[in-house]
Amino acid sequence: MSLIVNRRDLDFMFYEALDLDKLLATERYSDYDREALDAMLTVCQTIAEDEFLPFAAKLDANEPQFVDGGVKTIPELKLAINAYKEAGLCTSGYDADIGGMQLPWMVDQALNGMFVCANNPVHTYLFLTQGVANMLNVCGSDALKETYLSKLVEGDWFGTMCLSETQAGSSLADVRTKAEPVGDGGYKISGTKMWISGGEQDLTENIVHMVLAKVPGGPAGVKGISLFLVPKVRVNGDGSLGESNNVVLAGLNHKMGNRGTTNTLLNFGEGGDCIGYLVGNENEGLSNMFHMMNEARISVGQAAVMSALGGYLYSLDYARNRPQGRHLAGKNPDAPQIMISEHADIKRMLMTQKAFIEGAQLLMFYSAQIIDELRSCTDDVEKRRMSLLLDLLTPICKSWPSEYCLEANKLAIQVLGGYGYTREYPVERLYRDNRLNHIHEGTWGIQGLDILGRKMQMHNGAAVAVLREEIQGTIDSAAGHSALAEHSAKLIGALTQMEETVQAVAACEDKSLALANATIFLDAAGHIVIAWMWLKQAVAASEGLQAGNVADRDFYEGKLAATKFFFRYELPKSKAALTLVADLDSTCYDLSGAQFTGV
Amino acid sequence: MSLIVNRRDLDFMFYEALDLDKLLATERYSDYDREALDAMLTVCQTIAEDEFLPFAAKLDANEPQFVDGGVKTIPELKLAINAYKEAGLCTSGYDADIGGMQLPWMVDQALNGMFVCANNPVHTYLFLTQGVANMLNVCGSDALKETYLSKLVEGDWFGTMCLSETQAGSSLADVRTKAEPVGDGGYKISGTKMWISGGEQDLTENIVHMVLAKVPGGPAGVKGISLFLVPKVRVNGDGSLGESNNVVLAGLNHKMGNRGTTNTLLNFGEGGDCIGYLVGNENEGLSNMFHMMNEARISVGQAAVMSALGGYLYSLDYARNRPQGRHLAGKNPDAPQIMISEHADIKRMLMTQKAFIEGAQLLMFYSAQIIDELRSCTDDVEKRRMSLLLDLLTPICKSWPSEYCLEANKLAIQVLGGYGYTREYPVERLYRDNRLNHIHEGTWGIQGLDILGRKMQMHNGAAVAVLREEIQGTIDSAAGHSALAEHSAKLIGALTQMEETVQAVAACEDKSLALANATIFLDAAGHIVIAWMWLKQAVAASEGLQAGNVADRDFYEGKLAATKFFFRYELPKSKAALTLVADLDSTCYDLSGAQFTGV
Repeated sequence: MSLIVNRRDLDFMFYEALDLDKLLATERYSDYDREALDAMLTVCQTIAEDEFLPFAAKLDANEPQFVDGGVKTIPELKLAINAYKEAGLCTSGYDADIGGMQLPWMVDQALNGMFVCANNPVHTYLFLTQGVANMLNVCGSDALKETYLSKLVEGDWFGTMCLSETQAGSSLADVRTKAEPVGDGGYKISGTKMWISGGEQDLTENIVHMVLAKVPGGPAGVKGISLFLVPKVRVNGDGSLGESNNVVLAGLNHKMGNRGTTNTLLNFGEGGDCIGYLVGNENEGLSNMFHMMNEARISVGQAAVMSALGGYLYSLDYARNRPQGRHLAGKNPDAPQIMISEHADIKRMLMTQKAFIEGAQLLMFYSAQIIDELRSCTDDVEKRRMSLLLDLLTPICKSWPSEYCLEANKLAIQVLGGYGYTREYPVERLYRDNRLNHIHEGTWGIQGLDILGRKMQMHNGAAVAVLREEIQGTIDSAAGHSALAEHSAKLIGALTQMEETVQAVAACEDKSLALANATIFLDAAGHIVIAWMWLKQAVAASEGLQAGNVADRDFYEGKLAATKFFFRYELPKSKAALTLVADLDSTCYDLSGAQFTGV
Repeated sequence: MSLIVNRRDLDFMFYEALDLDKLLATERYSDYDREALDAMLTVCQTIAEDEFLPFAAKLDANEPQFVDGGVKTIPELKLAINAYKEAGLCTSGYDADIGGMQLPWMVDQALNGMFVCANNPVHTYLFLTQGVANMLNVCGSDALKETYLSKLVEGDWFGTMCLSETQAGSSLADVRTKAEPVGDGGYKISGTKMWISGGEQDLTENIVHMVLAKVPGGPAGVKGISLFLVPKVRVNGDGSLGESNNVVLAGLNHKMGNRGTTNTLLNFGEGGDCIGYLVGNENEGLSNMFHMMNEARISVGQAAVMSALGGYLYSLDYARNRPQGRHLAGKNPDAPQIMISEHADIKRMLMTQKAFIEGAQLLMFYSAQIIDELRSCTDDVEKRRMSLLLDLLTPICKSWPSEYCLEANKLAIQVLGGYGYTREYPVERLYRDNRLNHIHEGTWGIQGLDILGRKMQMHNGAAVAVLREEIQGTIDSAAGHSALAEHSAKLIGALTQMEETVQAVAACEDKSLALANATIFLDAAGHIVIAWMWLKQAVAASEGLQAGNVADRDFYEGKLAATKFFFRYELPKSKAALTLVADLDSTCYDLSGAQFTGV
């Protein structure tokens, strides 16, 4: 059993629950067929298992060090990145016109997911670089692209996103980093950026920072933010590296997990001029930076799924091979111990992990499929529908796995008992890695405000209407399988309650009160969407069973059982939560600071 | 604001929500009055803040090392223990007849709780020693007590509990360590024990291990387990230390958290004879070891509450002093940022922590009060009632805080955002420390089987009947406060559903199926008991408000708000959970191993 992927499940999601075949039939993805993708996934699985997974614990225990103003990482990190690069995988996430593989993004997510599962801190450097390259490709000038793009695409240089400052995390309006024009199209960048992942490293000769800064005299708040490309080392006209651009490493943050990725405090313009180049127009920095935000947030969700998958597969393997205790009925101390996977509560913990992880995984792939469709589809009406749905699903993609796949990691520890609590086993590390995902790329609370305050209400609820249509489509396809009728009814009931909740919130004139329970709404909406994803899987599994594929019987039965689990054990939780939101419960909102402790 | 205790809340729980005054009026505790206890708490708070708290992060980052067959700890650890010892606190948990302070156990829990909150890994050595001394005092021979007891009580030697082996964690029936009589009342101990906290250290000259082992020829399973006292260093007739007793440190486990406490693999009888002394009778080892189990499990719950309290107080202080963002209504980027404690979702996360922690804390004190009453009460009928109730509450005391106070730690990280994810702040460490509590002293699943399979059903439901009587008493006292009527009705409704669920479970002939959802039942029963604890606090707060204590208005209003929060946001969750249990849902139970991944 692989500890980083369930290939049978990938096939199921791609070709049975979703419709990758349809995408592959489009012009855009005509270079690929199922056989080619299978071979590619196998290559990736091998590299991830052989070059990424083996040193994940070592990297965690030996995080990058601040040495002589720079960073020193363990040699395995560079070797792993070289293996990834030599397989050409740095180009997996780009279109052919800039030298990329032009894969369906759904496949790219699965392919990179194996590396994330094996050793997320290594992959983070690669993931960030892809975001920077795509941003540059969409918003940058030809001159900037000429100098920087292929270096990023090929993985010769890595990229970073520099948004936060010590006083401005979620509140980007308060960014203070300054960009003063110097006349030749360049800007002098000065300021300090905090939480910059990959901000310094010893893996690539140059680092390309994408920096949010304010040009003096611009509008206050987010409207005055511009985006700049700031290289660590200046690049000469011939493309060779020049002198230092005075981006100084001021310190490393020491994290709970994901320790192999440096996280830095950077001073721009310390000890000399730091030159940046405008990307897009002045004062449009936020929208340029956020151009790739749907993708970035889905990738965060995917990372959460992958860290959880690592814990699930490990704890499942452990439970199948660890003898302990006996069946409750007729305990006989002379009888041999049974495997713990036979204990009901261990089954519950494994099932919970399965239901959370595979439910979330399908949502990630479904959302990726929308992105692929948006890239290949020519029907403007359908594109608008799908685009609305994607916007609505994005905060759920970001948050639901960050909450429930983290819970899965917690259960993986519990399955291993005392062993799970030690660093000799990977499950606690995977929990620590995963705990990041609720924080970066927009915190949990930010996602709640986004979905309830914006996405659910935009264009008079147009996105919710698309959601209902799509869910109805799944319910229609479930109609032929009588065992699923119970689930369909519950799903429609929950969806209706969600819609009514949105209406109650929209009718409230006090917007602060209306959104006071937004995070709870996000949680409940996530449960409804994941229930939908399980119904999709149940339909596909029922069809698979009907097709009489005996070898897959256990696999399909497991999918149907997990669907039942999610609908019985999880979905009912959304009801009480939505009631609170619809009632505009103000219990927390009304609380004054002094009331917490009385002093 | 102290970061380890809310003294106002301690007072509230002791003297308003509970009845410490009544205990202090008994003969047993007549040495103490409120003033004396206040002074003692202040001394403890000072020592905990000055000697324990400051190096908690350093101890976490510099865990004990395996050096030359022994253990090396950082010097601060011994200094802290000396400060605790010099204040006479090692004797806090014992009766006067063995040199103890004979405090109400409720007060002892609060007093030691401050040290746990400040630096739990240090306190663990002390906590374990207390358990060993109490076990020896109750079950040991006069000769053993003569040699060992005062050394343990004074904290000159520390103690450990040696139950688990690599193949026998939850399943003690499979213990293999052997104890062969050597003729003079001693036994030759041979075997390997795993997960032994404090099994080796450089803090005391001797270590007293309490070891479960089997005398050859005894019954199979748990019925053949005996308890032995095994010193690390043999003790001469005059009480001086003799030669090594051949307890060899085979390795240290490297834990996710609680790193300052060594956790060891010990070989007994490696390289020479290891002599142990029987404690109690042969084959009665398990019941002797479990003699203090209620107390030990409540202490685990208390530790979970304390680790969470550390996170709560830190995140509350942070939120009150961290500017970020603006009110949703009328955002103006030129306006100064507000403190994040004013954001609704931050309030929700702080309130959730408060509700979980203070609810669980009252349950710990309430249970401790029962233990105190059992020690001072002379009415046999009442003693039996209270004893039943304590047995019923114990698995909840152990598990509910391990789940929900851990959740509180997770939220404390979230309140701090990126900062919370770094080791420069204490909140992630407190999470890691707390994650242990669901595992040791009986895992979560074990507690579930205990409460549903045993405690709820024992003596024809006699314990549940006592629970109902006690809850009814609280509801009666709430009757004078009309605002609480809504809560009382919900509580009775939930309790009734719980009782019906137990009946449905008891009626099921397939005991394995009946208990398949035991952990979920435990979770729901815990919510109902914690709701009761909040109703108790609401009654006391209402009375406090009526008494017109203006200075405390915020404090009392906060209690009422937290009660409302728990009844609205949390208690409703028990309904769906109990429905599953009563329905004997077999979704997880029916799952076969192959169905998880299909391969």
